[in-house]
Amino acid sequence: MGSTAGPVTGRNRAAGGPTLAVVGATGAVGAVLLDLLSTRRDVYGEIRLVASPRSVGRPLSVRGEQVPVAALAPEVFDGVDIAMFHVPGAVSKEWAPVATARGAVVVDNSGAFRTAPDVPLVVPEVNPERLRERPRGIVASPGCTTLAMIVAIGALHRRYGLRELVVSSYQAASGAGQDGIETLYAQMEKVGGDRALGLRAGDVRGVVGELGPFPAPLAMNVVPWSGSLEDGGWSSDELQVRDETRKVLGLPGLRVSATCVRVPVVTAHSLSVHAVFGERVDQREAQAILAGSPGVVLCDNPELLEFPTPADVVGTDPAWAGRVRRSLDDPKALDLFLCGDNLRQGAALNTAQVAELLAAGLTP
Amino acid sequence: MGSTAGPVTGRNRAAGGPTLAVVGATGAVGAVLLDLLSTRRDVYGEIRLVASPRSVGRPLSVRGEQVPVAALAPEVFDGVDIAMFHVPGAVSKEWAPVATARGAVVVDNSGAFRTAPDVPLVVPEVNPERLRERPRGIVASPGCTTLAMIVAIGALHRRYGLRELVVSSYQAASGAGQDGIETLYAQMEKVGGDRALGLRAGDVRGVVGELGPFPAPLAMNVVPWSGSLEDGGWSSDELQVRDETRKVLGLPGLRVSATCVRVPVVTAHSLSVHAVFGERVDQREAQAILAGSPGVVLCDNPELLEFPTPADVVGTDPAWAGRVRRSLDDPKALDLFLCGDNLRQGAALNTAQVAELLAAGLTP
Repeated sequence: MGSTAGPVTGRNRAAGGPTLAVVGATGAVGAVLLDLLSTRRDVYGEIRLVASPRSVGRPLSVRGEQVPVAALAPEVFDGVDIAMFHVPGAVSKEWAPVATARGAVVVDNSGAFRTAPDVPLVVPEVNPERLRERPRGIVASPGCTTLAMIVAIGALHRRYGLRELVVSSYQAASGAGQDGIETLYAQMEKVGGDRALGLRAGDVRGVVGELGPFPAPLAMNVVPWSGSLEDGGWSSDELQVRDETRKVLGLPGLRVSATCVRVPVVTAHSLSVHAVFGERVDQREAQAILAGSPGVVLCDNPELLEFPTPADVVGTDPAWAGRVRRSLDDPKALDLFLCGDNLRQGAALNTAQVAELLAAGLTP
Repeated sequence: MGSTAGPVTGRNRAAGGPTLAVVGATGAVGAVLLDLLSTRRDVYGEIRLVASPRSVGRPLSVRGEQVPVAALAPEVFDGVDIAMFHVPGAVSKEWAPVATARGAVVVDNSGAFRTAPDVPLVVPEVNPERLRERPRGIVASPGCTTLAMIVAIGALHRRYGLRELVVSSYQAASGAGQDGIETLYAQMEKVGGDRALGLRAGDVRGVVGELGPFPAPLAMNVVPWSGSLEDGGWSSDELQVRDETRKVLGLPGLRVSATCVRVPVVTAHSLSVHAVFGERVDQREAQAILAGSPGVVLCDNPELLEFPTPADVVGTDPAWAGRVRRSLDDPKALDLFLCGDNLRQGAALNTAQVAELLAAGLTP
C-alpha cells in the first residue's frame, strides 16, 4: 500500500496562510464552495466548516480532507481571519457581528448588508479597490441575478459609459435554495412525459403538487415573481438588481428597470439585457471587449447556433455572454443575453475570489 | 331516443352567411380554430376544411358536424367568400393568390404577407379600420409573439403615446408547431424526475435526445434563439416583433428592441415589456386602462401573488396583463408582464375575429 493510497491530507494547505471559516457549509452554495476551495490555488491555513447544530460532526470533504462540521457558536470564530457566510440574511445579521468582534473579516453572501453604506459590495473583476475600506469588517457579495451580468456590463461600462439598463431574468429554481431544487424535481417527476398537460388552463396546476417556495407551478411554466412585495408593485429581487448594480458600478443615478422571472431550470440564471450607453457602440468591438474580459466567456456565433444556455454553462466558473447586438433604433444601445451558474459564478465563486484577495492582503 | 341524441348537425349555421374555407385545418392552430368556430357566434354558411393530401377524407368536428377534409386544390376555393390560412409561409405564398383569384378574401396567419405594404396587418382591437383597404384581397394576422402584447400595448399607446419598446420573450414550444410540442414532451419524459440532472454542464444535453426544431435542449433549459439569422445578429422572430408592432400601431419610426427566448412551456407565450411613452404614466391609471380594454384581462395583485402565468392562461381567449409598474427612474415608462395562449389568443382567435369582421361586411 504505497503513499498514494488513502485520503490525501492537507496536500494543498498553505503554510502560515490565514484561517478560514465557512459558515453554511452544508447548503447548496456551501457544497459548491467546498468544491472551489478544493480545486483553486490554496491560500489558507486551517479551514473550519460551520453549520447549524443539526449537521454538527458530519464530515465534509474539502482539500481532500474529511472535516467535521462545527456548530455555529461565538467560539468557532476564535483565531479565524476570514469568515465566509452562505446563510439566510437573518442568520448573517445576527452572526456576522459576532465573527467581526472576534477579529474575523466577514465575506457575506446574503442580502443583510448589501445596501448598507458602510459595507462595500465587491465583485473582484469590477471594483476590487472597494475592498480597502471595510469599516464594519464586513464585505458583501451581490446576489446571483446581479452577478450574472455585472462583470460583462462592467467591462462595457468602462468603454462606453453606462446610462440605463432594462433587464429581464430567467432565474433557476436553485436561486430559491435546496427547497427550490427539490420542488422543481418533484414537479418535473409529476409532469414528465404526460402529453395531455400544458394545453388547457389550470391542468399543470392540478398535477404538480406542492408549490414549495414558488407562488405558482414552476414545471412547464414561468413565474414572474421572486422575492417579497415592495412599493409600486416591484419585487425585492427586482429592486436588488437595481441597488446592487448601482453600488458595484459606483453609479448611484443609473436608470435600471428589472423584471425577475423564475423558469423551470435547476441551475444557472439567464438575463436578457438592454444596455444604453453614453457613447455609440459597435457590435464587433463590444464582442471583443467581452471576449477579453477576465471572468467572461463570449459565446456568440448565431450562424453556428452558438449562444449561452443554462444547460451548457451550469457547473462552470465564468459569466457567459452571447447574442450581442447593437439596437437597430439606438446606436448607443446594446442587447445581449447573459448566463451564469447561480450557485457557482453567482455566489460561491465571487465570495471565494473576494476572500482570496483578502487573504493576499492578510498574508505577510 | 329523444331529439337530443346523436350529433347535432348544422345547429349554428347562419342562413345565407358567407362560405368559409379553413386551410390547414389539421395543424396545431387549426384544431384550436375549429374549437373557436364551434363555440363563437356562428356567422358562416358552409365551412370547408382543407389540408394537405395526406389528411384528405379524415373527418374533423366543427359546429357539431363531422366534416371530411378536402385536399388543397384550386377548385376547393370556388364559391368561397373567406379563406383562412394556417399553414407555413411557403404554402400561403403559393396558395393565397389562388384563393383570391377565385374570389375569396384571404386571412393569412403566416409570415408570407405581414410586411407587404399592400397587405393590411390587422388586430381587430387595435386597427380594425385597416380592413377597409385590401388591394390584394389578402389580410395578414401578426405572429403570436406580437399578438401577446399588441392589444395591451395598443390600449396604453392610445392614452400615453408610445415611443419605445424593449421586449424579452418567454416563448412556448408550440410556437414551433406540432414538432415543437412533441419534442418538448419527449424531452420532458427523458428528464422528468431525474434528480441528478441540471447540476453539471452538458448533462441535460446528454439526456434529452432529439432537439427537434430547437437549436439546444429545451427541457430544463431556456434557448435564446427562434427563427433564422438576420443582419447584425438579430433573429427573424426579433425583427418580426419590431416590424409587426410598428405596422399594427401605425408607428413606422417606433424604437423596438426584442430578444426572443424559448422556454420549456408547452403553450402560452409570455413577454416582459419595458414601454416608454411620450407622456408621464400612472400605475393605477395604466392598470385601469388595461382592465377596461376589450380582449385584455388585468391580473395584477402581487399582494395576493396574482399575476399571469402560462399554466393559468393556456386555453383562454384574452391577452393577460400583470406586474404593471411605473419605472422608478423614468416617469414616462412602464414595465409589465404579458401572457397569451400562442395557439389561441396569438393565432386562431385573431384570424377568427378578422374573418368575422369581414363576414359582417360581406353579409347583406
